[in-house]
Amino acid sequence: MASSPLTVRKREGRLAPETVAALNADLSARFGNRFSASDAIRRQHAHTLTWLENQPPDAVVFAETREDVVDLVAICARRDAPIVPFGIGSSLEGHVNAPHGGVSLDLSRMNAILAVNAQDLDCVIEPGVTRTRLNAYLHDSGLFFPIDPGADASLGGMASTRASGTNAVRYGTMKDLVLSLGVVTADGTFVRTGTRARKSSAGYDLTHLFVGAEGTLGIIVEIALKLAGLPEAVSAATCSFPDVRSACNATIETIQTGLPIARIELLDTLSVRAFNAYSRLSLPEAPMLLVEFHGTEASVAEQAARFGAIVAENGGGNFIWATKPEERTKLWKARHDGFYAQMALRPGARPFATDTCVPISRLADCVEETLEDIARSGLLAPIVGHVGDGNFHVSPLVDMADAKEIEAAEAFASRLAHRAIAMGGTCTGEHGVGQKKIAYMEDEHGAGALDLMRRVKAAFDPRNLFNPGKIFTV
Amino acid sequence: MASSPLTVRKREGRLAPETVAALNADLSARFGNRFSASDAIRRQHAHTLTWLENQPPDAVVFAETREDVVDLVAICARRDAPIVPFGIGSSLEGHVNAPHGGVSLDLSRMNAILAVNAQDLDCVIEPGVTRTRLNAYLHDSGLFFPIDPGADASLGGMASTRASGTNAVRYGTMKDLVLSLGVVTADGTFVRTGTRARKSSAGYDLTHLFVGAEGTLGIIVEIALKLAGLPEAVSAATCSFPDVRSACNATIETIQTGLPIARIELLDTLSVRAFNAYSRLSLPEAPMLLVEFHGTEASVAEQAARFGAIVAENGGGNFIWATKPEERTKLWKARHDGFYAQMALRPGARPFATDTCVPISRLADCVEETLEDIARSGLLAPIVGHVGDGNFHVSPLVDMADAKEIEAAEAFASRLAHRAIAMGGTCTGEHGVGQKKIAYMEDEHGAGALDLMRRVKAAFDPRNLFNPGKIFTV
Repeated sequence: MASSPLTVRKREGRLAPETVAALNADLSARFGNRFSASDAIRRQHAHTLTWLENQPPDAVVFAETREDVVDLVAICARRDAPIVPFGIGSSLEGHVNAPHGGVSLDLSRMNAILAVNAQDLDCVIEPGVTRTRLNAYLHDSGLFFPIDPGADASLGGMASTRASGTNAVRYGTMKDLVLSLGVVTADGTFVRTGTRARKSSAGYDLTHLFVGAEGTLGIIVEIALKLAGLPEAVSAATCSFPDVRSACNATIETIQTGLPIARIELLDTLSVRAFNAYSRLSLPEAPMLLVEFHGTEASVAEQAARFGAIVAENGGGNFIWATKPEERTKLWKARHDGFYAQMALRPGARPFATDTCVPISRLADCVEETLEDIARSGLLAPIVGHVGDGNFHVSPLVDMADAKEIEAAEAFASRLAHRAIAMGGTCTGEHGVGQKKIAYMEDEHGAGALDLMRRVKAAFDPRNLFNPGKIFTV
Repeated sequence: MASSPLTVRKREGRLAPETVAALNADLSARFGNRFSASDAIRRQHAHTLTWLENQPPDAVVFAETREDVVDLVAICARRDAPIVPFGIGSSLEGHVNAPHGGVSLDLSRMNAILAVNAQDLDCVIEPGVTRTRLNAYLHDSGLFFPIDPGADASLGGMASTRASGTNAVRYGTMKDLVLSLGVVTADGTFVRTGTRARKSSAGYDLTHLFVGAEGTLGIIVEIALKLAGLPEAVSAATCSFPDVRSACNATIETIQTGLPIARIELLDTLSVRAFNAYSRLSLPEAPMLLVEFHGTEASVAEQAARFGAIVAENGGGNFIWATKPEERTKLWKARHDGFYAQMALRPGARPFATDTCVPISRLADCVEETLEDIARSGLLAPIVGHVGDGNFHVSPLVDMADAKEIEAAEAFASRLAHRAIAMGGTCTGEHGVGQKKIAYMEDEHGAGALDLMRRVKAAFDPRNLFNPGKIFTV
């Protein structure tokens, strides 16, 4: 059964019915009513958000403790069954799908906040804690956790996809803010990947190896996170531009001059229209930047003045300032609901998720070429972007009954990914590889780097128990 | 010859004389006068800086191109000979020693600056470029590379030890500023570990796996680095405290309030005395913080005022401001020469290098307990620290003819490392593991994490060609 140590065992198809029956008997005996094999629960624990197929697991287990996870790994190892970690299911790339069957490990009940070390600006949590719950908990501490993907994702999921969001331009991504992890490995060992020291040169960086590994190397059961101090002053605004290129150029200049902007988000006209409709806003229907400044009162004022000058030089203007907290909350709530706002542009259609990120010097080129491509391909495809990082999302909205439209959207997404890679960028800035981005991995990394990744997988999980079918084909 | 894939081949002793002869014949034929087996050059290419033994390689090869490195790896693989990468030899932990013989790969001639992408705030360089040379090159670009270990180290070496220095509290360490690497693997393949995009979720983080790997997983031949904009305004100062605990407490408060200080360095009284003597300064002989603020004129003034208030609250004062660039340069030159200044306290003695780093809330405790330990052990042991990160160095100066003194220093260094680990910290914040910190790896990481590190080594370099005898025993 065990593969040769430097080969990852290739899985084909799903588990045999007799294996599923034996597995489920084991799981039921160990987990009781925290085990389910019902159709509805299995389907809820697979991909539901975009055009990707729903591929349910054979069973779902709700873990409550680290011991639950260790025991689940042992049972699945014995039955040679895949384990697919599940937080809240907000992945856009099919990470929670179970193409080879097995068990969805629902970690949402492992949601304890184990420690907040305010003096050290860090905390230790379980993986099922969501970002808004953590920030609600931190409310009176003067601290916050800045990473904010659109969904109220679990932090285990965010660590596993190396997530980011609107604050990343100032505060970094999960790769910068995960201090260390507690992980259950394929042989059932609990391992801590590092200490709470702010820096260390003590051996290989296991923390960064598990961050972004999409659950394929081990199960994250504990996370130490860096926190940031709540800024004394915050100021947010929208401003409009005659075209997307001008908005991109203003962004590029902002970053290049080292302005410590906290958030700088692009919306194309179509997205503005979607936001207005979905979130009852009345933003001017033109390409727009949505920005926020953090600092002391004096520094926020200075940043805002400098940014205003850059916007004016690039032909933009029409600033609308959100100075009151509730105005800012409304604006950012609309931004975080952007995915649903875009979907509402075409009821019944399913969105494709794209996630390209390029060096900022190529941002305007990449967005402009992409707009031309959208126009040529006849797709309805709004754009939003964390443009301070060079990252933007185009979401073609597709009638799933129309094979031609699906084909056109797939071809478009492929051209977009290869365009970003050709510009020195990546096919995925923050969503992860999951299932459909596997196709671009060799173009982005080259065969040699992919071989090193497979070696890591083979060294940690040669039997391919953990989330098979994600990141690469084996 | 080849070990089983998931075992790292254990090396014992040095290469046999006939292997060395055959190896050197191969190297001489391929590299001509860029090969040397002279005693003097071999000794220069092993450890020379601290109390650790000098363990020369069998030969030295000066590489000039990536092809040189690929060919050297092939020759060494054929002869089963270790390869020890060498930058300028400023490692403090025996990284450049060759306990099992083999070839020192001198990369100092691979020192081209391949690209400066000012618009993207990044550059691409070869590993032999030193930090001061890179900054001299960047001089007119408005950009700089902030990481500054004491020595004018090569950036390949700095990447390999996950180095930091005085600016890390604001700008991060090598783990934060290496964007991607070009690496030659044990089978001679050239691999790029990532793109120039600022963020990516495209698979395993190979970049961070090679950063800090101390040359044990592959040879770094190309580095893409993030750069920072030169601050508009800079202001530096020293201030004095009645005792080290007060200085630590002021540091802790500075960090906890989120003041974006660029540098905050601790010197104990003994270090101040050493700096005064070596660098002809007249700093007040008391525990001292040496700080620097970066930003706009207004923000630097604001930061300085806030810091001043924190210092006063902690019983410190006696500020001396270095406002002119030449005054600042003198102060920081003295800081970077600290290692030599400390050595000059006791001519003829050799320094031990220690490098503990703890969560900042434990900094004052750790430093104070360590001072008591120094007093009890009767060692001459000055302290300096990058205290904003919780990182400090104690350097016992030891008469190498006195076995008892060596023993006392080793026992002290061991107590210090375990003390930091017990406080949730690390035995090495920025120097790396090298040879003598191997002893603390299991206490710091646990057996499970060490096993994962060994698996990575086994997956990438099962024959143990790359820098054997560093990071862990196999």
